[in-house]
Amino acid sequence: MEILKYELTKGSKDRVEIIDITKDIDDILATCKIKEGIVNIFAMHSTAGIVINENESRLIKDFKNALENLIPENKNYGHDLIDNNADSHIRTFFIGSSESIPIENNRLSLGTWQRVFFVELDGPRNRKFVLTIIGK
Amino acid sequence: MEILKYELTKGSKDRVEIIDITKDIDDILATCKIKEGIVNIFAMHSTAGIVINENESRLIKDFKNALENLIPENKNYGHDLIDNNADSHIRTFFIGSSESIPIENNRLSLGTWQRVFFVELDGPRNRKFVLTIIGK
Amino acid sequence: MEILKYELTKGSKDRVEIIDITKDIDDILATCKIKEGIVNIFAMHSTAGIVINENESRLIKDFKNALENLIPENKNYGHDLIDNNADSHIRTFFIGSSESIPIENNRLSLGTWQRVFFVELDGPRNRKFVLTIIGK
Repeated sequence: MEILKYELTKGSKDRVEIIDITKDIDDILATCKIKEGIVNIFAMHSTAGIVINENESRLIKDFKNALENLIPENKNYGHDLIDNNADSHIRTFFIGSSESIPIENNRLSLGTWQRVFFVELDGPRNRKFVLTIIGK
Repeated sequence: MEILKYELTKGSKDRVEIIDITKDIDDILATCKIKEGIVNIFAMHSTAGIVINENESRLIKDFKNALENLIPENKNYGHDLIDNNADSHIRTFFIGSSESIPIENNRLSLGTWQRVFFVELDGPRNRKFVLTIIGK
Repeated sequence: MEILKYELTKGSKDRVEIIDITKDIDDILATCKIKEGIVNIFAMHSTAGIVINENESRLIKDFKNALENLIPENKNYGHDLIDNNADSHIRTFFIGSSESIPIENNRLSLGTWQRVFFVELDGPRNRKFVLTIIGK
């Protein structure tokens, strides 16, 4: 058994963007000597999250609308007096900073419609993710 | 130290259902050679999640009402033009696809009131979960 | 490779409180023989969660307001007939019970603004957390 770490960096172009990073992760796993196990993808930011869902363009838009409906961008947040991104932090608070996913045969073992997304909530920015891979 | 994988399948009967799978997981752990460690329960679907909470029938109803209040079933979602389950995806987006739980003495090490639930958000269906167990 | 477990207890003073436990975790990691790896912090309660975000006092207040706006304390919940804390359970349902975080050089490998919080949702109480540390 082994534990290995990799770093993934990824840029965003919009303030709120839901970016499919499945291939980026699978490219790292393809060259990794751990073939079977689990990978944790951790976003090193407090205004960006990781989720697993389907990659369908209308649905991606629905996710963005849901974020805006539930946690609106401007709502007299106290933190906005310091840095105008309270909504980005609150959205991350509910979404979560990481996901753990099984690995099989040197790739993510996802369901048919599952993809891994980096949820940018205060872009555009370059973001850093740590992949911790455990297995054999 | 070892890493082992198991598959759990579970059916649902309703569109939205919150199903206690604690015993299903403990039954697998009871026969597993890893006695101490951690287990990750991963739902291989983009319209089903995993949560930990109390199993009390009125509370289960409260959870369902909260899902409907926060993310209503019908709300002119774009994805509904393709597949009429945008709400199921958005709810999964916020709930998350997996949980990791400590193992002690061949069983889940949960608090007094904690139980593990599979949250069906687009049933009835048969669902598949991967248990990744790490420990010794 | 090794797997080790530690228990952390922490008290809260208010019904809803967002408490920074980064130092408590780092103090445990500092004395741990696992230097590189990952730690899972698991709350053994169904009315308390773990999140990662920024520690800024106005933002902490924004988080509490968002919890109250999205899932109000009193709203004719069925569970309140049994135990007057349905909101605490529903909030935990959406926040989640654990987080997994990379470890580097005997400490949490967090981003510049990231801190680990225990979210008390039905205090004041003493709460128990299990740290499962995997690495070498």
